[in-house]
Amino acid sequence: MTQHGYYQGKDAYLARLRRIEGQVRGLQRLVDEDTYCIDILTQVSAVTKSLQGVAVGLVEDHLNHCVRDALADGGTEADAKVAEATAAIARLLRT
Amino acid sequence: MTQHGYYQGKDAYLARLRRIEGQVRGLQRLVDEDTYCIDILTQVSAVTKSLQGVAVGLVEDHLNHCVRDALADGGTEADAKVAEATAAIARLLRT
Amino acid sequence: MTQHGYYQGKDAYLARLRRIEGQVRGLQRLVDEDTYCIDILTQVSAVTKSLQGVAVGLVEDHLNHCVRDALADGGTEADAKVAEATAAIARLLRT
Amino acid sequence: MTQHGYYQGKDAYLARLRRIEGQVRGLQRLVDEDTYCIDILTQVSAVTKSLQGVAVGLVEDHLNHCVRDALADGGTEADAKVAEATAAIARLLRT
Repeated sequence: MTQHGYYQGKDAYLARLRRIEGQVRGLQRLVDEDTYCIDILTQVSAVTKSLQGVAVGLVEDHLNHCVRDALADGGTEADAKVAEATAAIARLLRT
Repeated sequence: MTQHGYYQGKDAYLARLRRIEGQVRGLQRLVDEDTYCIDILTQVSAVTKSLQGVAVGLVEDHLNHCVRDALADGGTEADAKVAEATAAIARLLRT
Repeated sequence: MTQHGYYQGKDAYLARLRRIEGQVRGLQRLVDEDTYCIDILTQVSAVTKSLQGVAVGLVEDHLNHCVRDALADGGTEADAKVAEATAAIARLLRT
Repeated sequence: MTQHGYYQGKDAYLARLRRIEGQVRGLQRLVDEDTYCIDILTQVSAVTKSLQGVAVGLVEDHLNHCVRDALADGGTEADAKVAEATAAIARLLRT
């Protein structure tokens, strides 16, 4: 089992993702209880922001470990790792 | 109980939100199983996109019903409804 | 010549867009002067935020005038106007 | 004069930024000519996407050079470089 950059923060990420799961269930409750649209949209923004926080953390961990190790080794593997990380960041930017 | 713009699509929204809940649990599994960071980031982008789809749907329903009714009545209530909807759209843009 | 929702704020929008034009020329200077990447990225975020502000203003003006007039007339023209506005908002969200 | 990651692509970045400058002047023309709001919003999305493309390019160049060199040197400088790059990416995500 390979340990990745986020390994040390694994429990914290799992806790954050469980909170986000709870936020999404909260959205279901708001819809189910015919809550005003704007209040649901506000909560959607909050959930999106929570997800963004997880993404930024994972990017930093990935740069600090996986990319770092690859760059230390140098060569084409390093270029591939940076290209891969940049593509993931670009996908995040497009959401 | 007031019915809001999304009322007719309520079941569809609930189904979409349950799928998103499942996607978030999927993220937890990926972290728990030490999945490669980039694959988790790709899934985070997918969940964010799903949420965005729900938000766009709610905006359209809100414009088509709540804002529409207020604009039909006219007056300051209509201005307030448009300002409120625009602020919610601005919040979505900032995430 | 049809006057659209932003007509009354036209001069203000033109002034904001000229400032954004100046910000983009500023980005060119930063690149030309070999400024540190992070400082350029910070300025790109600032320009993007300025553009976002213009977009939110245009959305509000459009809802307050074009969509409002169409909704006052009612019928399928109103539905088309709301669908059109929502599609524009969705495009903004995807950037 | 320090050469940064984007140095080799400097002319290409300058050309792209001049095109974006032209796009922003195009926005001014659209407003000046009372163009329909939705068409202006569509152009704002296009300009934002162009800026995003420049940002993603700069991030990749920065990772491939400045961060790479710092990681090769190792130590706290490397941590600082990764933290700085992550903060810039987070700012981009929030626009």
